[in-house]
Amino acid sequence: MGDKTTVYARPLARLIEQLQRLPGVGPKTAQRLALHILKRSESEVQALAQALIEAKQQVGLCTVCFHLSAEPVCEICRNQNRDNNTICVVADSRDVIALEKTREYNGKYHVLGGVLSPMEGIGPEQLTVSSLVRRVSQQQPKEIIMAISPSVEGETTTLYVGQLLKPFTRVTRIAFGLPVGGDLEYADEVTLARALEGRRDLD
Amino acid sequence: MGDKTTVYARPLARLIEQLQRLPGVGPKTAQRLALHILKRSESEVQALAQALIEAKQQVGLCTVCFHLSAEPVCEICRNQNRDNNTICVVADSRDVIALEKTREYNGKYHVLGGVLSPMEGIGPEQLTVSSLVRRVSQQQPKEIIMAISPSVEGETTTLYVGQLLKPFTRVTRIAFGLPVGGDLEYADEVTLARALEGRRDLD
Repeated sequence: MGDKTTVYARPLARLIEQLQRLPGVGPKTAQRLALHILKRSESEVQALAQALIEAKQQVGLCTVCFHLSAEPVCEICRNQNRDNNTICVVADSRDVIALEKTREYNGKYHVLGGVLSPMEGIGPEQLTVSSLVRRVSQQQPKEIIMAISPSVEGETTTLYVGQLLKPFTRVTRIAFGLPVGGDLEYADEVTLARALEGRRDLD
Repeated sequence: MGDKTTVYARPLARLIEQLQRLPGVGPKTAQRLALHILKRSESEVQALAQALIEAKQQVGLCTVCFHLSAEPVCEICRNQNRDNNTICVVADSRDVIALEKTREYNGKYHVLGGVLSPMEGIGPEQLTVSSLVRRVSQQQPKEIIMAISPSVEGETTTLYVGQLLKPFTRVTRIAFGLPVGGDLEYADEVTLARALEGRRDLD
C-alpha cells in the first residue's frame, strides 16, 4: 500500500513541502504548482529560482523612507521631479505600491514597517517612528499625509504619529473613502485616489 | 507620477513577473507572494530556490511505467511487495498520486502521458501506448485496469487502449463512481476507492 514516501519522489516531496510554506498555498495547490514546474523547461525553472534569490539578495529597505529598494536610496526618494514638501506615511511597502498605482500622488513616502500593537509587542521602537520624526524635523516638509488603514491599531498609529509630528508641520489624513475595517492594500485605485483628494487636517 | 519602473524595485518586478507564470497566480497573488518572500530569511528563500532546481533536475520519468521518479525505475515499480499481475493505466502522474492516496491499490501503474485528442494533435505516438503494449505482451499481467477520467477524450483513450490490450489479458475499467465530466485528480479518496472496487470487464 502506498505510504507517504512512495506517493512522491523525494525531490518532488521537498518541493511541495517548500511551496506549502507560501501564504495561501495548501497541499493541493502546492502539488499542482510542483507538477506544473516539473513540466517547465530547466531554463524556465532556473529563471524562477534565480529571481527568488536575486530579489531576496538585492532588495532591501531605502535608508530614507524604508520602502523596498534595490539601492541604498529608493527610486522615489531619488526622483527630482517628486515633491519634497509632502511625505505620505504608510504602514507597509505594499501601501506605497498601492498608492503609486493611483498615479495621483507626487510626493515622498515614509514606511513605518507596521502599526502600533501593544498586544503583539509592537511599540514605536519596533517601527521607523524616530527616523520619521528626525526626517521631518530636518527636512521641514509642508505636509505630512497619514495614510494608514482605519483599523483600531491603524487609528492609534495615525493619532500617535500625528501628535509627534504636529509641532513641526501640518499633518493631514486620507479621507475615509476606504471601507472601515478594510485593508488599504486591497482598495481599488479610484477609492484610494478619492481618499487622497479628500484628506483633511488632523484635529 | 509613479510609472511601472518606480512601483517595484527591478529585482522585485522580475520576481513578480516569474511568479505570474505559475498556474492560477494573477498579478495580485504574485505581488503578495513576492512581498512575503522578501520577508523570509535568506536561507529560507535559498531552500525554496534549491527545491525548485533539484526537483526539476532530479525528477524524470520511470523507464518502466513513466510515473515521475528520481531513479531510472520508480519506487512503485521496484517495490517487491506490490502485485506484478495488475497494471493500472492512467493519463497522468497526478492520477497515480491520487490513487496511491486511497491506499486501496497494490498493483503497478502505467502513465500514458495524456489522452488521445485529435484536435490537439495527440495520437497514440504522443503517448506511451506502444511501451504499454510491449510491457503487457512481455509481462503477461492478469489484469489491466483502465483508470482514465470519463471525458470524451478519456473515453476514446480507454476504448482504444483497451482494444489493443484485450488480445493479451483481461481489461477492466474503474466504475463510474466519479462524477462524469469531473477530473480524476480531484475526486475524493472514498469515491476513488469505490470506483476501484466496482470495476468491471470492458465489453
